[in-house]
Amino acid sequence: MEKEIISNAVRARILNDALPYIQKYHDKVIVIKYGGNAMTDENLKQAVMSDIVLLTLVGVKLVLVHGGGPEISDMLKKLGIESHFVNGYRYTDENIIDVVKMVLAGKVNKELVTLLGQTGGQAVGLCGLDEKMLIAERMYGEHDEDLGYVGSITKVNTKPITDALKNGVVPVIATVACDEEGQTYNVNADTAAARIAAELKAENLILLTDIAGLLRDKNDPNTLISSVNVSEVPFMKKRGIISGGMIPKIDCCVEAVRRGVKKTAIIDGRVPHSILIELLSNEGIGTQFR
Amino acid sequence: MEKEIISNAVRARILNDALPYIQKYHDKVIVIKYGGNAMTDENLKQAVMSDIVLLTLVGVKLVLVHGGGPEISDMLKKLGIESHFVNGYRYTDENIIDVVKMVLAGKVNKELVTLLGQTGGQAVGLCGLDEKMLIAERMYGEHDEDLGYVGSITKVNTKPITDALKNGVVPVIATVACDEEGQTYNVNADTAAARIAAELKAENLILLTDIAGLLRDKNDPNTLISSVNVSEVPFMKKRGIISGGMIPKIDCCVEAVRRGVKKTAIIDGRVPHSILIELLSNEGIGTQFR
Amino acid sequence: MEKEIISNAVRARILNDALPYIQKYHDKVIVIKYGGNAMTDENLKQAVMSDIVLLTLVGVKLVLVHGGGPEISDMLKKLGIESHFVNGYRYTDENIIDVVKMVLAGKVNKELVTLLGQTGGQAVGLCGLDEKMLIAERMYGEHDEDLGYVGSITKVNTKPITDALKNGVVPVIATVACDEEGQTYNVNADTAAARIAAELKAENLILLTDIAGLLRDKNDPNTLISSVNVSEVPFMKKRGIISGGMIPKIDCCVEAVRRGVKKTAIIDGRVPHSILIELLSNEGIGTQFR
Amino acid sequence: MEKEIISNAVRARILNDALPYIQKYHDKVIVIKYGGNAMTDENLKQAVMSDIVLLTLVGVKLVLVHGGGPEISDMLKKLGIESHFVNGYRYTDENIIDVVKMVLAGKVNKELVTLLGQTGGQAVGLCGLDEKMLIAERMYGEHDEDLGYVGSITKVNTKPITDALKNGVVPVIATVACDEEGQTYNVNADTAAARIAAELKAENLILLTDIAGLLRDKNDPNTLISSVNVSEVPFMKKRGIISGGMIPKIDCCVEAVRRGVKKTAIIDGRVPHSILIELLSNEGIGTQFR
Amino acid sequence: MEKEIISNAVRARILNDALPYIQKYHDKVIVIKYGGNAMTDENLKQAVMSDIVLLTLVGVKLVLVHGGGPEISDMLKKLGIESHFVNGYRYTDENIIDVVKMVLAGKVNKELVTLLGQTGGQAVGLCGLDEKMLIAERMYGEHDEDLGYVGSITKVNTKPITDALKNGVVPVIATVACDEEGQTYNVNADTAAARIAAELKAENLILLTDIAGLLRDKNDPNTLISSVNVSEVPFMKKRGIISGGMIPKIDCCVEAVRRGVKKTAIIDGRVPHSILIELLSNEGIGTQFR
Amino acid sequence: MEKEIISNAVRARILNDALPYIQKYHDKVIVIKYGGNAMTDENLKQAVMSDIVLLTLVGVKLVLVHGGGPEISDMLKKLGIESHFVNGYRYTDENIIDVVKMVLAGKVNKELVTLLGQTGGQAVGLCGLDEKMLIAERMYGEHDEDLGYVGSITKVNTKPITDALKNGVVPVIATVACDEEGQTYNVNADTAAARIAAELKAENLILLTDIAGLLRDKNDPNTLISSVNVSEVPFMKKRGIISGGMIPKIDCCVEAVRRGVKKTAIIDGRVPHSILIELLSNEGIGTQFR
Repeated sequence: MEKEIISNAVRARILNDALPYIQKYHDKVIVIKYGGNAMTDENLKQAVMSDIVLLTLVGVKLVLVHGGGPEISDMLKKLGIESHFVNGYRYTDENIIDVVKMVLAGKVNKELVTLLGQTGGQAVGLCGLDEKMLIAERMYGEHDEDLGYVGSITKVNTKPITDALKNGVVPVIATVACDEEGQTYNVNADTAAARIAAELKAENLILLTDIAGLLRDKNDPNTLISSVNVSEVPFMKKRGIISGGMIPKIDCCVEAVRRGVKKTAIIDGRVPHSILIELLSNEGIGTQFR
Repeated sequence: MEKEIISNAVRARILNDALPYIQKYHDKVIVIKYGGNAMTDENLKQAVMSDIVLLTLVGVKLVLVHGGGPEISDMLKKLGIESHFVNGYRYTDENIIDVVKMVLAGKVNKELVTLLGQTGGQAVGLCGLDEKMLIAERMYGEHDEDLGYVGSITKVNTKPITDALKNGVVPVIATVACDEEGQTYNVNADTAAARIAAELKAENLILLTDIAGLLRDKNDPNTLISSVNVSEVPFMKKRGIISGGMIPKIDCCVEAVRRGVKKTAIIDGRVPHSILIELLSNEGIGTQFR
Repeated sequence: MEKEIISNAVRARILNDALPYIQKYHDKVIVIKYGGNAMTDENLKQAVMSDIVLLTLVGVKLVLVHGGGPEISDMLKKLGIESHFVNGYRYTDENIIDVVKMVLAGKVNKELVTLLGQTGGQAVGLCGLDEKMLIAERMYGEHDEDLGYVGSITKVNTKPITDALKNGVVPVIATVACDEEGQTYNVNADTAAARIAAELKAENLILLTDIAGLLRDKNDPNTLISSVNVSEVPFMKKRGIISGGMIPKIDCCVEAVRRGVKKTAIIDGRVPHSILIELLSNEGIGTQFR
Repeated sequence: MEKEIISNAVRARILNDALPYIQKYHDKVIVIKYGGNAMTDENLKQAVMSDIVLLTLVGVKLVLVHGGGPEISDMLKKLGIESHFVNGYRYTDENIIDVVKMVLAGKVNKELVTLLGQTGGQAVGLCGLDEKMLIAERMYGEHDEDLGYVGSITKVNTKPITDALKNGVVPVIATVACDEEGQTYNVNADTAAARIAAELKAENLILLTDIAGLLRDKNDPNTLISSVNVSEVPFMKKRGIISGGMIPKIDCCVEAVRRGVKKTAIIDGRVPHSILIELLSNEGIGTQFR
Repeated sequence: MEKEIISNAVRARILNDALPYIQKYHDKVIVIKYGGNAMTDENLKQAVMSDIVLLTLVGVKLVLVHGGGPEISDMLKKLGIESHFVNGYRYTDENIIDVVKMVLAGKVNKELVTLLGQTGGQAVGLCGLDEKMLIAERMYGEHDEDLGYVGSITKVNTKPITDALKNGVVPVIATVACDEEGQTYNVNADTAAARIAAELKAENLILLTDIAGLLRDKNDPNTLISSVNVSEVPFMKKRGIISGGMIPKIDCCVEAVRRGVKKTAIIDGRVPHSILIELLSNEGIGTQFR
Repeated sequence: MEKEIISNAVRARILNDALPYIQKYHDKVIVIKYGGNAMTDENLKQAVMSDIVLLTLVGVKLVLVHGGGPEISDMLKKLGIESHFVNGYRYTDENIIDVVKMVLAGKVNKELVTLLGQTGGQAVGLCGLDEKMLIAERMYGEHDEDLGYVGSITKVNTKPITDALKNGVVPVIATVACDEEGQTYNVNADTAAARIAAELKAENLILLTDIAGLLRDKNDPNTLISSVNVSEVPFMKKRGIISGGMIPKIDCCVEAVRRGVKKTAIIDGRVPHSILIELLSNEGIGTQFR
């Protein structure tokens, strides 16, 4: 269907169809964890920004949380710093944590703020160090391996986030944290988003990923599971439906729901405007956890 | 085009297309004069209500103004009261003004309030007598004919309207007015809407009518004039392009623009969702006056 | 005693005598159910309006609730609609409920608003449909007789009332209700006033009636009972002191007291300024229930 | 006329008669300069307190200003301090100014505050030293005679007064002033009241005195002049109608009107409830200056 | 060490050293009971005023409570009024209570207000009669001796105090109280300060005295006890460490701590800036009770 | 003078000496441009942080603006990016602007935020891209040389800064700017600080530098000029007193004063606590421009 042939009548009817969904999310807090292709492909990126500005205008209190692994790797490479991985975590020494902070809070974060500004939104860039928003403690590997400055969040100060929402701007949050002594830590962005959503008593947490959602058969996109009750998750892990890289992501979803977020969803960031489709249409996209 | 075949992707894209228009009208006051077919046909009525609730949710401060000529005639007939017309105005004696007030403020107004409530909105019914919102003085015919209690508005107290907007509800206004002594007057709903829009420094005034707009050739719908500068109106009257029943409506538009309303539009209330089409799409519908 | 012969000194002393009563009701919510002669006699009507404006000025948060049975009957008669009564209730079909709504919310209500405005007050007319203020469910007769659209109130949304009080205007409330589907219902005005008073945690509920109050001997006005504890009511019913048309009125009083209204009173609306006498003098007028 | 024989009906009617006056002064600032018999006779005193509390309850923003000459003389006598007068002013040395401050701010002021509290009002005692409310400069006699610490007000800081009004309490003000160096000054209470009224843009300034008002013939109480335009004052002085002790009082009235007070009145404090008679009845009492 | 030889570098460092203490008391309520030498010696007085203004500027919500025994004695002597003492209390008859009120609220209080004003602060003078701040009941001697109008505080209305703090001014409170009938009472200033501190949930109560603090050996200033847990007080009384005039003062401290004040301290008012030393340096001064 | 030998009495007196300066700057906006040694030496850095937290606590509304040239150079070197200079400006190509943004907003900025947090302050890191705070246009060299993405500020949106101050946190601002199209620009930090100070109507702008101030004889530190009227600057340039690297800094000062900043000062950041010395002692430090 070509864009040009859609009449205004149809357009109006479609806007009208979105009404019940807009009513549902009006004045609610929604946290979006932004990552993957949606963050690297320019067109997808622009679509995400538009979706965020639109949702803000229809009264959603939107919080954007991001990481930026590829940009960090890229910068480390440029700087000739090698990194090795322990238990799937990048060992983060003093040099690396500096690069992490710089890239996330100074590059990725500010580019998103700028892009939202270009799209007509008002955004402010924050990170876990601002007003000690994200307090973390040192984390260790499965078998107590030293991971360097990799942290696990112990406390969230929501004041800078709610201040931003009250001031009418979108808080864009880079997921670096600190401890009470001021040491910076690298934290997982999915986990950070889940914790922030929980502390904000968010209505929704949406994780943008590069997969269609949870598939009953990994190789068959037609086996998408559209909704999962968090109590089924252990069983699905045992059965191998949830496995590999999906495990930590889905653990985040479960954790968020357990801490009070009404609904979390893993959606396909490769589909343009997937956020709008998830929130403002009759069927979601991807897999929801409740 | 069938509703069913529109994919979510297209829906999302269309929502996204509305973004710049939503940004434009966010937090702005828009006054809609409701009347004609859009007020009698049940489907059109429901579409108008949906449009209003949707606009409210995207941040528009919406004010709904209505008359109700056919319902008045209907009730007068049921009551066996005959009316005669002077200069196109219904001669309004003491009995008739009572019926006018009762039908507009007690029937039409409350039905609209109820319908908005059913559509998920929050509305409060007001009329020109509440807090002396519309003060009128007696009006006479072209040649000083007595018209009875037909009034022309001299003062607007916007307090009850802005109170409603501040309280987060849609003010629905029945166009009866009063004088300082408490006498009720029948006032023209188009004029009332124009005066209210002007006093509120509205961004837009939209008159829902039963015509496509201003046509260069009355008989050819393809000759719609989409935009008119108010300074051209006298010339268009002289040329006969504006004539007959269009004259008072367009005079309202001109008056509203002169008193500070940014834009007024005469749109076709027979088209479903014409308000959304006018406000949230690339082309307006009907004729705009600036 | 002639008005003219009262000296200013006496006037001042009398104003001064009112001081403790004014102190008592300052900043308190008082709900007045308006009806009977006080609503039809022009002089009494004006006196009630003056009393309301005066009470508002001395800091009382006044809410005026009204029905309008005679005006409804009058209009039905004019429209040639016959009505029959079931269990003392007017059977209310679709045509009749339309007339009820129109007369109460469009005629009686707006006349009171206008009259308060003339007396120097600021009033706004509301009904149970505005912001779904009064939610009702269908009610049936004692033996499950169909009564048509006669409703019993199940929920009160006080927001439009408290908004009006906060905005410094007197809310005048016509007692029509609706259900969640938007169907309008005819509700008893005394009951509605009692429910509203209870939800507002009112200090006082005053029912203006056409009797002197509760008499120990119906035929002897000297046997007025000035105060009744609600726990005595069942006994008084058994003894026949409370009987006939008094029963539902007094049940309202009892209900209101049980739901938290400090005091309710049935007072004689035929006495000019009976509201002021009740509230601002050493003795009340009529019968109080606590 | 005995108090007992006034029926509640008459009482209600009289309250009702006060309505237009209450409407007129609602939310307006009225400054009362309290002195003379009304301040020494216990019954009159109580009547003034009642009037003030009543006016406060009907929405008047009341400010009470007082001096206390007799109490000062009394205390000076008790302390064996002799005073001599220069140009009608008490020569105020260091010992005397201490007594003035102590008696006005610590005795008279606190007694009034207590009495208002007993009458059901909430009052706070202030003097010109609190937050440097009244700034004065040294004043000299007609022929430059040294008067000691007698001051003339040069600046009024209304903050403590408006703070009290905002906090819902009656400010009771003792008229001692200070200069920027902290030296206390004795200031004329009438003048202070006039300056305070002017700075507050008061609606009314009322001076309670021991005379009936301005008489055309000093010896004939039937020649009371009820209203004077301030432009007539110079002429009335020349004609001797205004003479002697009346001159400074009336100069205060003129000054207050010139600085923006709408109306000032000299009223007879010997009449019980003279303030209410002045404000809440069809005729004032005493002489008004506009 | 001479003032002149302290370099700006040292000054800056010392200011910097105060930082942690300023952080600790920022936005906290501190009640200071002012009395003794610090109130009679001009230099000490000025130092106290400076300390108060400084603390106010660094964000402390400061409340100043004072008595004025010596000034009362002085005035009684001047007035030739003899007083006798019962149980250590001055027997307070009607004449004496008048002098007490006048001297405390009109002389001492207003001098402190003026002095704070001179030092650049904004202060308002209050006493227990303003808005019925301190309600007392008659108190009797140990063996029920009549003490006249000596009162013990039963209720504290903190509104005038918190209003002053909210309005950004220092409340200076003269410790006279009243009962509900308006009778004035003489109350102990230490006790009053303790009660006020408790009702305000103050962080600190500081009593300025003429001793170094609590000494283990009364005659050896080197035996100062710097901190006492209130549970140790009974034991210290038994051991005679707390004895004589110290008992009531320390009972006040214990009472205040028991009622919720975090810390109270008896400090040496003879040392210039002892308040600052207590609050803003590494060691307190005097004896703390917790 | 050793730290240990300063008695508490002296400490208190010194705190007291700071009182008039604290009064002067209470509630005023002060902008500090942070740079030079004070930003690289760890001890000096900590002293600056302490000074900022202290000033915040005494009621100063402090805004911290920083650049970070050495850190940028350092990172460019690590990345092997060479830069050449045009007219004293670093030619800023696309790669370099990315590094500038990343280092300033992600490294230097967040380190300062963290350090303030460690010192007990609450800070939020901002840059010119947040809410489009600093809008710039491309700048060219003296002879129109291309400088790449070097910008000159054309508009300042103070909302994020005043929001932070209202929320009780110190805004720390990295001086990168953007144009309306979202292109990032490198801007001079001194100029940015001057523009921000001007838009905020700051009381003071303080530039921390590595020199003692303006010297009449560059080689003789005893010739410090402590105060300059901006009208003298052209003359001083002509005379060579102002020359070389001082010219742009002093032009900033002049510009800020011209745009409404009351006072600007160039102070010696190499002296510990130079900010406190400048603001809270009898003599400033460095050179003031008015």
